[in-house]
Amino acid sequence: MDPMDDQPRANDVTSPASDREAGFAVGADFRRFSQKDDIFCRSFWDPEVRSDRSDMFYETYRTPKMKWRSVDGFTQRDYALRNASWHVTDIFAELREDADRREGFLDPYTVMREGPGSELPVASPETMAREVKRSARVLGADLVGITGYDERWMYTHAYSRETETEKPQEIPRGLDNVVVIAQSMDKGLLRTAPSALSGAATGATYSRDTIVLLAIAQYITNLGYRAVASMNDSALVIPLAIKAGLGEYGRHGLLITREFGPRVRIGKVFTDMPLAHDRPVRFGVREVCDVCRACTDGCPAKAIAGGEPSTLMHNRSNIQGIRKWTTDAEKCFRFWANQNTDCSICVRVCPYNRDFSEWWSRAWRWLAGTRLRRLALWLDRVGGRGKRLRPSLWWDAAG
Amino acid sequence: MDPMDDQPRANDVTSPASDREAGFAVGADFRRFSQKDDIFCRSFWDPEVRSDRSDMFYETYRTPKMKWRSVDGFTQRDYALRNASWHVTDIFAELREDADRREGFLDPYTVMREGPGSELPVASPETMAREVKRSARVLGADLVGITGYDERWMYTHAYSRETETEKPQEIPRGLDNVVVIAQSMDKGLLRTAPSALSGAATGATYSRDTIVLLAIAQYITNLGYRAVASMNDSALVIPLAIKAGLGEYGRHGLLITREFGPRVRIGKVFTDMPLAHDRPVRFGVREVCDVCRACTDGCPAKAIAGGEPSTLMHNRSNIQGIRKWTTDAEKCFRFWANQNTDCSICVRVCPYNRDFSEWWSRAWRWLAGTRLRRLALWLDRVGGRGKRLRPSLWWDAAG
Repeated sequence: MDPMDDQPRANDVTSPASDREAGFAVGADFRRFSQKDDIFCRSFWDPEVRSDRSDMFYETYRTPKMKWRSVDGFTQRDYALRNASWHVTDIFAELREDADRREGFLDPYTVMREGPGSELPVASPETMAREVKRSARVLGADLVGITGYDERWMYTHAYSRETETEKPQEIPRGLDNVVVIAQSMDKGLLRTAPSALSGAATGATYSRDTIVLLAIAQYITNLGYRAVASMNDSALVIPLAIKAGLGEYGRHGLLITREFGPRVRIGKVFTDMPLAHDRPVRFGVREVCDVCRACTDGCPAKAIAGGEPSTLMHNRSNIQGIRKWTTDAEKCFRFWANQNTDCSICVRVCPYNRDFSEWWSRAWRWLAGTRLRRLALWLDRVGGRGKRLRPSLWWDAAG
Repeated sequence: MDPMDDQPRANDVTSPASDREAGFAVGADFRRFSQKDDIFCRSFWDPEVRSDRSDMFYETYRTPKMKWRSVDGFTQRDYALRNASWHVTDIFAELREDADRREGFLDPYTVMREGPGSELPVASPETMAREVKRSARVLGADLVGITGYDERWMYTHAYSRETETEKPQEIPRGLDNVVVIAQSMDKGLLRTAPSALSGAATGATYSRDTIVLLAIAQYITNLGYRAVASMNDSALVIPLAIKAGLGEYGRHGLLITREFGPRVRIGKVFTDMPLAHDRPVRFGVREVCDVCRACTDGCPAKAIAGGEPSTLMHNRSNIQGIRKWTTDAEKCFRFWANQNTDCSICVRVCPYNRDFSEWWSRAWRWLAGTRLRRLALWLDRVGGRGKRLRPSLWWDAAG
């Protein structure tokens, strides 16, 4: 017998008990988020966010020919690599642009091959969950967890680039389970953040994310169930990832995983296949972030709050009615726009940004999960981890 | 000073000295190969190869609905996973089907985004080679080597599915360098070969191959040079991989790498960027294959010769005028067609099919490179490595 069997199961992921287990503090004034208020959407329709600098920011992703800056880390080779890393993601994002779709970012991926029309009988949700996870991993997923559909995290509306307004959310009803994956980002590139070069870690991971999500959805489709692959579109993915047991929520507003710390990109597949759910994990992140200010201090845009979790909304890009650490997306994005690439300083300086295949990093993680967490943070600081590497040194490194 | 500097450089990859270094025995009667004679092309136009079974073989890749067989490893979940693993590769292969193109298999990938129109000045071919390799690796390449363009390995013609005849080879002239990559295949899946399940290792690796090749070509394009990404189309890739230093040629006709043994898929990017070339590597494969018959004995189709390297041509799918170990592609493919999936038994049983992150595998590789290679092979046999795992056990394995 599974010793878990007599414990309350978190099958209703929307229940207060499930929220408590995940550390969610959702208030009575909670309101679902519309993707239109996402900072990237606002950088198109909202004059408070859109500027010549933000237009230029996007232009650097499309146009290889210009010399954008002559600072180390922002030269032609840096942008050449960054934009190449985005290439496959871009292809899929643009494949149905004629239909006002930007798949993976504003719209879920279109199912390209239909299933067999009848469902494979499922032995049990536990067996199917195990098989889906095993399959996801050989298809290239680094981390996989499963949770239930939760309307609260679904965008009320999607966003149309063409009309610059809201359009209907299109994830069909009845897809009651969500397979959440996290893909690790290259640690070496991120050492050079902020730089166009470090942006290659973002793009390369999205590209892997894309192909793995498409493959997992196709696998489920081939078994006769419905499955929709989704990356940044359709829903807030961090609450789903936390409930699916992939990690804890960090002060910088990012998911912190046991295996890669905050160095991940997340995607999901909605499906009606019966699948057992995972439970949230705790390994000390909440308590560490309570006393750590590495990201707050490291952020040049001062976008990351240093105080307690709160329900404060900096602006319309924050979600209403959840007590949590909340970043200021306007300040964050303005910094991106000003430097012509994305920024991952908060990832670089986070004490959980380690290579956990090393025993000392695992020992550090263990220590950080004990009452000696302040010692762990002190060791992290004196150890010098998290310092920026000059981008030209990344290029010079042998092999 | 580099101690290699006073040795003869293999800059002319077509020279007899370069061939000798790579272990190539190319005769005066050598003739270039036309892709039309490739066994997969023949399975469409050549009644000697095409059959109801081969048509059915291809059908299993496209149609998820039918129960193809009820044998373990060939059930719906196995085909569901195999076909999902091919999904992204298929999307790219079919993207320009209207133009009679099957990119990655019969035609090189179309360049989708143009470069800046002027070339980044190159410090030296050595520097550029280092930067391209470093970039390729963060874009997802497992192994990268560089060699020169060699007309001998280019297909005389490409093959048109639409007309079932030859069509012109389209790699433009002047792309004098070739970046060759190898992607590792999942070892666990291959333990179940032959099975539809183990075919997922093939598809998943092609999918990774595809996105990495596209990204590398785009990186070079973004620097202002010409670059064409190519997978199984346009040229024989094994001779290119050997000259690029990725591994040695094995008795089964596959590349054997130091890092993953024969467990790789290979792709290439043709470019005019000035790049220093790598040199072939030797680590004892030739001598091991001389005395080993694991693949010959393991092949149920008896497609792998047990004798000395020869110039024997089993049929028109062999290349003329090279003394080498030569497999019988007709027998090999007939076995694939009969079992409704690809076969990787020769990969599974190859003594180099090991996980070289384990110290004992590295020790074994070292031993196999010495005069004690027969002892190494004996240890391999008594150790039981290479036995088939029942596919249902793969599914049952935890996590």
